[in-house]
Amino acid sequence: MVHTAAQQPTLAPDTVFDWLDEAADLRAAAGLTRTLRSRPADDPVLDLASNDYLGLVHHPAVTRAAADAALRWGGGATGSRLVTGTTALHTELEDELAAFCGFEAALVFASGYAANLAALTALTDPDTLIVSDAYNHASLIDGCRLSRSDVHRAPHADPAAVRRILAERTHRRALVVSDSVFSVDGNAAPLAELSAAAQDHGAALLIDDAHGLGVLGPGGAGAPAAFGLAGRPDTVATVTLSKSLGSQGGAVLGPRRVIRHLVETARTFIFDTGLAPAAVGAALGALRLLRAEPERAERAREVARTLADRLTAAGLHASTPDAAVVSVRAPGPEAAVRWAADCRTAGLAVGCFRPPSVPDGISRLRLTARGDLTDTQIADAVRIIAVTGASHADRP
Amino acid sequence: MVHTAAQQPTLAPDTVFDWLDEAADLRAAAGLTRTLRSRPADDPVLDLASNDYLGLVHHPAVTRAAADAALRWGGGATGSRLVTGTTALHTELEDELAAFCGFEAALVFASGYAANLAALTALTDPDTLIVSDAYNHASLIDGCRLSRSDVHRAPHADPAAVRRILAERTHRRALVVSDSVFSVDGNAAPLAELSAAAQDHGAALLIDDAHGLGVLGPGGAGAPAAFGLAGRPDTVATVTLSKSLGSQGGAVLGPRRVIRHLVETARTFIFDTGLAPAAVGAALGALRLLRAEPERAERAREVARTLADRLTAAGLHASTPDAAVVSVRAPGPEAAVRWAADCRTAGLAVGCFRPPSVPDGISRLRLTARGDLTDTQIADAVRIIAVTGASHADRP
Ligand SMILES: Cc1ncc(COP(=O)(O)O)c(C=O)c1O
Ligand SMILES: Cc1ncc(COP(=O)(O)O)c(C=O)c1O
Repeated sequence: MVHTAAQQPTLAPDTVFDWLDEAADLRAAAGLTRTLRSRPADDPVLDLASNDYLGLVHHPAVTRAAADAALRWGGGATGSRLVTGTTALHTELEDELAAFCGFEAALVFASGYAANLAALTALTDPDTLIVSDAYNHASLIDGCRLSRSDVHRAPHADPAAVRRILAERTHRRALVVSDSVFSVDGNAAPLAELSAAAQDHGAALLIDDAHGLGVLGPGGAGAPAAFGLAGRPDTVATVTLSKSLGSQGGAVLGPRRVIRHLVETARTFIFDTGLAPAAVGAALGALRLLRAEPERAERAREVARTLADRLTAAGLHASTPDAAVVSVRAPGPEAAVRWAADCRTAGLAVGCFRPPSVPDGISRLRLTARGDLTDTQIADAVRIIAVTGASHADRP
Repeated sequence: MVHTAAQQPTLAPDTVFDWLDEAADLRAAAGLTRTLRSRPADDPVLDLASNDYLGLVHHPAVTRAAADAALRWGGGATGSRLVTGTTALHTELEDELAAFCGFEAALVFASGYAANLAALTALTDPDTLIVSDAYNHASLIDGCRLSRSDVHRAPHADPAAVRRILAERTHRRALVVSDSVFSVDGNAAPLAELSAAAQDHGAALLIDDAHGLGVLGPGGAGAPAAFGLAGRPDTVATVTLSKSLGSQGGAVLGPRRVIRHLVETARTFIFDTGLAPAAVGAALGALRLLRAEPERAERAREVARTLADRLTAAGLHASTPDAAVVSVRAPGPEAAVRWAADCRTAGLAVGCFRPPSVPDGISRLRLTARGDLTDTQIADAVRIIAVTGASHADRP
């Protein structure tokens, strides 16, 4: 975009980034300043802010597997997966993850973000229409933007609208894409209806199961399994290893032909260093633990329902959770920040989600219903949120 | 893009991905099939294929630091850096990395890929012209595409062309972006001239130092330090932790105001899980080792020069290395694949780069001049490449 035809005045080197300070001032005025908080290893607060849904991130079976992998395989993968970055450990994780989730094959990436960019760019072309839920995660949105396809942003969780958009398309191909569980409120997408719409219109379905794996489905096998969509020839899922599996990384799950295509063409696979062995090991450790103790998944869902019920009973505006996330509304970004800070002072860490991290612009506290929370911890959390909410909460 | 106005025929679910098989057939016909090879922990081949420039990936100080970090901090970072994903270890790494490379501040990302996407999207706006070297890495190209800016692809390593493009611009802002060392041939960018061009035209400079950190500059402090550009108010660098530092992850280095801006606005920072503690630990371990043993950097450059000289003396078409990468030309993709396979049979792993991983379309073997290679290993490598090259090499 060019504002004027005339040459702009040249800036001195120490002023070329002045505009960043002006942007910071604008954010500050809107109550949207963000700062990093560095946490100690022995943080005494009760953590309801992380995405450690099953409470596995510090489990000895997970940390020991990470440590062993680093000691055996090295500090990093040493190169692209296609050159030197595929160890036998990567292949083990891919095989076990595919089997666990009910897909033919899996491909591990350095992050869930990279997995989403890969799926959206490699499985589409200029003659594809992507139909993307309005509340989809940033990585899906960036994947849409990186694709060479037309993108239609569909109203949130509205399969009838998706059907209409698919029916009117003139593109040869279409891909319907949705989070399985939306990160902010923890509500599930209408995956059965989205799949039916895709099937009726010859479209493929891409499910981002970042917040479903480990929580939904039999033994935590994820949303595709929960909705009977795992292993379908027209369905692809992405997952992260960084939430329920207590590690880092991501994966794409799907038909073997899809995985082969990603190996050979996905830029964030070919041009990125493979996931570090320690992260592969941690994810494998968590996956095996979950297979051995499948009740962990149901417990996380149960904690979420309990949290939501009690917060609602306390007069707060809590979301109705379909997985392991509950949110509580605040009247605005500043109130949300103060509310979260008061919780922390009282010993409770909660997420504080403000624009642009909330697609509807509503600021919230976001709570993780960790499956390993005790009844006492749940009661403490509800009490702290309710007491501090007296001055900051939005009322239903 | 819409090819016809008429509704396309609807595909059956098991045929929606048929087009991927057709694409695979086309790649196979062009000699461009790629397959994953899973390596064992005790691979006996001599490795000149990885990006482990300093030979640190298996160093006990690195793997032990990774293992200790996992045991102490957990298998993953548990959330976005802005929520729960910043540990004291992340902050330590950021402080030490900034000091080592000579910048005011640093910000660590889950990958070098993510760091590049962040820098290009957050430090530009619709009134910015990005001037990007034609041979830049895929992650820089994707960052350009994700930005809202106009992008001008400048001829490779041509500061005079960059000057002309900057002089003619009508955008308020401009960002010149280049790899410091180009991954395929190991040649350095003309960074001093690019910086002068940027300064004369009020532009900022972004240097991707993925292949410079640990190899170039005093004690491996990187290309910005080598060229006297570290710490400039108009200069930003990105690095990866996955090559010389034997780990995974990436970082942006720059003025404090730039880092603050990234923390508050970069999508691949805000919406991605923090780098796993084990990877942070491994990178810190490697960085401290390099500080204690600065001669490792010079040794890697020396190995590269020796390799290139001997390969040239053997009648091969080797690149002139400015860092720790040497490439050898092959007449075509199939010859390159066969050549690399013959090397492997003879006990030597080399990279095989074919389109689309080579910007000029020329297929090559790519060799990493690991700083820990012995003279015997160098001699063995040269011998194997020369002997197997008798049937596959391109001749100068
Ligand atoms: C829905 C969703 N998809 C993808 C991602 C990206 O995964 P990762 O952080 O593991 O890169 C996240 C969270 O970070 C997410 O919430
Ligand atoms: C020049 C360059 N920039 C960025 C990257 C991405 O870094 P990472 O693999 O650590 O994500 C790479 C290599 O992978 C690279 O070669």
